[in-house]
Amino acid sequence: MNAELLKSLMKEECLEHIYNTQKTTHTDVDQKAFREGMSNLGAAVNVITTYGPAGVAGFTASAVCSVTDTPPTLLVCLNRSASVFETFKENKVLCVNTLASHQMALSNVFGGKTPMPERFAAGQWETLATQAPVLQDALISFDCEIVQSMSVGSHEVLFCQVKAIQHNQGLNALMYFNRAYCEPHRMC
Amino acid sequence: MNAELLKSLMKEECLEHIYNTQKTTHTDVDQKAFREGMSNLGAAVNVITTYGPAGVAGFTASAVCSVTDTPPTLLVCLNRSASVFETFKENKVLCVNTLASHQMALSNVFGGKTPMPERFAAGQWETLATQAPVLQDALISFDCEIVQSMSVGSHEVLFCQVKAIQHNQGLNALMYFNRAYCEPHRMC
Repeated sequence: MNAELLKSLMKEECLEHIYNTQKTTHTDVDQKAFREGMSNLGAAVNVITTYGPAGVAGFTASAVCSVTDTPPTLLVCLNRSASVFETFKENKVLCVNTLASHQMALSNVFGGKTPMPERFAAGQWETLATQAPVLQDALISFDCEIVQSMSVGSHEVLFCQVKAIQHNQGLNALMYFNRAYCEPHRMC
Repeated sequence: MNAELLKSLMKEECLEHIYNTQKTTHTDVDQKAFREGMSNLGAAVNVITTYGPAGVAGFTASAVCSVTDTPPTLLVCLNRSASVFETFKENKVLCVNTLASHQMALSNVFGGKTPMPERFAAGQWETLATQAPVLQDALISFDCEIVQSMSVGSHEVLFCQVKAIQHNQGLNALMYFNRAYCEPHRMC
């Protein structure tokens, strides 16, 4: 691969962005404006799984965020009306499987209406500290106990202590930005 | 620009990632392992600002997450020991300015030890619904009231209702992944 050529082409592509901008402002933020706005907050794509007394479940989510390293804690936002909500709430464990850039198809399977057995048949799984399914070829997996939660509007924010981490080094990330799958490229 | 050539070079680069992976597992997750792990959760880069009775402040953060659209709410995680913490807490308003890919320098200014006046001199600002500074050429800005907060370990999670949104359409995002600035490219 000609790295210099790639760099120069990517730089050209970057500069294009600066010249075609148009400003819009909403001062009455309804659901539509909020969702449209949030589609511009690029984020990693994760398959969140659980297993325990309430059964097995998994869904695709980008609303995952690091909270604190003392104790190691992340959060996941989940709609209380989602079909999987009670399963997560009862099992009290979950695994955040952050997807690698080759896992778009898996993201779609866990993001749609596919029944749970078929969802899990689309990947290979193991367990670490909890019983939550850990995706073997994820970019990185955070196996967690749900230690606290908080209701905010339609959603529940689940605070999760990280009990184990598994990392497949050398993979690029799958990200979602502007309603499209992307992967991060180092800045040109 | 030769789009086909760029696509083929990028595809080659994508495929490279799949062949050089190495798996590591931590079952005793300390601060170091957690931070190392979290560096793999790619995220948007934001300059979070406030202004009010307690003065003006701003810092760079990636721990921002959409919560719910009913009512339109996002969250920001902030270390309670950060020098800016009390200013945000007292002002009860903030603006999440999601950076565009040309704003790496601004991210560094707001992410370091630069005094506040110099930080704000590095950008151009306006106001919308609250008094929080809105960065004129951000990719998108979410002007918010802090309506609720919750302590989790060393950090405070600020829940913010979005009162106004300003969007510069056509810009690419600035993201942070693997401790490097990146921009998202549509999947090859």
